[in-house]
Amino acid sequence: MTVTEAVTEADRPLDLVADFPAIPAGWAYLDTAATAQKPRPVIEAITRAYGETYATVHRGVYQRSADMTLAYEAARRRVARFIGAGAESEIVFVRGATEAINLVAQCWAAVQLKPGDRILLSQLEHHSNIVPWQLAAEKTGAVIDVCPLTADGRIDLDAAERMLTPAHKLVALAHVSNVLGSVLDVRRAAALAHGVGAKLLVDGCQAVARLAVDVTALDCDFYAFSGHKLYGPTGIGVLWARAALLEAMPPYQGGGSMIDTVSFARTTYLPAPARFEAGTPHIVGALGLHAAIDYVEAIGLDRIHAHESALVAEARAALGRMNIVRLFGPADSAGIVSFAVEGVHPHDVGTILDEGRVAIRAGHHCAQPLMAALGVPATARASFGVYNGPADIAALVDGIERVARIFG
Amino acid sequence: MTVTEAVTEADRPLDLVADFPAIPAGWAYLDTAATAQKPRPVIEAITRAYGETYATVHRGVYQRSADMTLAYEAARRRVARFIGAGAESEIVFVRGATEAINLVAQCWAAVQLKPGDRILLSQLEHHSNIVPWQLAAEKTGAVIDVCPLTADGRIDLDAAERMLTPAHKLVALAHVSNVLGSVLDVRRAAALAHGVGAKLLVDGCQAVARLAVDVTALDCDFYAFSGHKLYGPTGIGVLWARAALLEAMPPYQGGGSMIDTVSFARTTYLPAPARFEAGTPHIVGALGLHAAIDYVEAIGLDRIHAHESALVAEARAALGRMNIVRLFGPADSAGIVSFAVEGVHPHDVGTILDEGRVAIRAGHHCAQPLMAALGVPATARASFGVYNGPADIAALVDGIERVARIFG
Repeated sequence: MTVTEAVTEADRPLDLVADFPAIPAGWAYLDTAATAQKPRPVIEAITRAYGETYATVHRGVYQRSADMTLAYEAARRRVARFIGAGAESEIVFVRGATEAINLVAQCWAAVQLKPGDRILLSQLEHHSNIVPWQLAAEKTGAVIDVCPLTADGRIDLDAAERMLTPAHKLVALAHVSNVLGSVLDVRRAAALAHGVGAKLLVDGCQAVARLAVDVTALDCDFYAFSGHKLYGPTGIGVLWARAALLEAMPPYQGGGSMIDTVSFARTTYLPAPARFEAGTPHIVGALGLHAAIDYVEAIGLDRIHAHESALVAEARAALGRMNIVRLFGPADSAGIVSFAVEGVHPHDVGTILDEGRVAIRAGHHCAQPLMAALGVPATARASFGVYNGPADIAALVDGIERVARIFG
Repeated sequence: MTVTEAVTEADRPLDLVADFPAIPAGWAYLDTAATAQKPRPVIEAITRAYGETYATVHRGVYQRSADMTLAYEAARRRVARFIGAGAESEIVFVRGATEAINLVAQCWAAVQLKPGDRILLSQLEHHSNIVPWQLAAEKTGAVIDVCPLTADGRIDLDAAERMLTPAHKLVALAHVSNVLGSVLDVRRAAALAHGVGAKLLVDGCQAVARLAVDVTALDCDFYAFSGHKLYGPTGIGVLWARAALLEAMPPYQGGGSMIDTVSFARTTYLPAPARFEAGTPHIVGALGLHAAIDYVEAIGLDRIHAHESALVAEARAALGRMNIVRLFGPADSAGIVSFAVEGVHPHDVGTILDEGRVAIRAGHHCAQPLMAALGVPATARASFGVYNGPADIAALVDGIERVARIFG
């Protein structure tokens, strides 16, 4: 089925694997939380940009460059609309979510925070939503607090409510856990943060491809995500921030396109978002991301969420019937299932599954503090995308049965 | 002619435009100094990476991801070999030259420099090799000195020799001027810098696609360039630094892949280059850059340099015969010719040329201090690549004659 047919047949289950040329028949790709495979329209948009319409942006006086500038800025508008931003000028193109968070840590936290100010993170954060704050805390004398999790692996917002004080200037949390798939109640987190005068940054890496996101409705202050996890190209990502916050932030990197005037005596800077995009940007990355957003919205995020939730339910039910499997995370995980096979290291699980043409991730998932909290060195993780279906779950279950036989 | 044929017929002039699908017949693309068009092998490498072999790097326990990791690290080795680096671990993948220079400004200059320390730049630097040092100087109390130019627009190394003192800790200069095409004597600049105990950073953006570069022979300390100006993808670039310098530098951005262990109590970091590559990298950008380097090396940098020098000589001779044209820069410019048409704003020159299917750049070229030194608000700039030939020069000259008729 093509995406067009899928849209006109909204009642049928998604069956889009034919849109993904890098997924051969019989390969169960279950590592979408690491990176998503690319649908044909994204690959075609990239090929067209390099092979037909290529030029630089923001500088050329010739038509080709003016057209490319329009396409680049159209991508920015498309992103703004996709996440419900108030204005396209609130969208900063970066390399990925990691850089987006580092940009806020460097240009907001390291500038705003004073000794004794506090940052609230959670126990399940990805390293990209921990280490930048540790670096900013070292510079400023700010202190990091860690919100615990509920028994089923959600960020415990009741605990957060008890922990938050007026000393807290920032709360930074994952919208969807990359290990457990647990979904944050962002509106409540925003209300709690704002209640003590703190800002809320949301790491939306795993969310944007799995849930409909509207930053205005969610009422957060910063939102970060990567293009490559949203079926888009590598090397492109997005920082959204409220206009007033961006405008008050000093420059990030110095260079071309972010300046107003440069002299050795005095340099002045452009307003956001240009101020934060020094140098020639990843032009084709932005165009590919535009195509990726068109692709997922043509399917519909609600439909994708329902599809992945069904796969999660099926996978958890099948794995849960196996005595040797321990499941992590909540039952209503968004597209991600972490598990352990009793007595078998997750890396061995991953290797044996790979022999059966099932690709999962095994490791700490860049979330070592969460591993510590779960009491394991690593987990095995199956994560789903729009191209997955029941056959992939069957292949996963067959693979785990094979693991059990080999180690049994 | 294909690149393969070109290699076997080294005596014939380069005629490679058929390798570049985004250059239609009759279009004179003379803006390669802004960004290079992409040859088919680069586009194919990108399409193959997204459409056949795509996976994440450094993390997967399955074969596809292990293979992609090998390809990503092979790209790093290819870059190291291309610029004569001592070791592949000296190659850090970044977004582009701008980010490379900012990384050094943030992780080396802002850490090493003390109040009263001095940085020597030149009057012809691109904003990307000025603003990062201004930001670092603001933070540290360091002072920036500006080396003047010779009458024909080269960095005046005699003046630099007189200016340099033991207070200078860094000299940062362009290998090839993006406006004038003037080529720096890097070995002499390195000797001068090292003579007072300073490090030499070279902005190699315009050089790597136009000259054979060997950082070991040049004896510089840092070398920065962008992939997209080297016929590669957007969003990828390279910082090379001596191993000892990289090893002594603190982390750049925090996140996944750059850490050894993370806990809320204490986080430790990996050695270079991983320490400087937080988050999922621009995987496909690195693979595309690999293909671009293969492409230019198959032709040969010496041959490319000879080709572009011949075009520069022809263009300067033809434009020089027109009384209304003022030429900037040295006669032996590397592939770049800046000029002014008497009484006509460069933007009007660019617009009229565009009507005749000739794409040049007009503006300050992100080098406002150089414009000030030249006493002009802007220049028109024609810059050459491997796909250009005599027909492009003829079209440029026809266009300038048309400008003269319209404004005459």
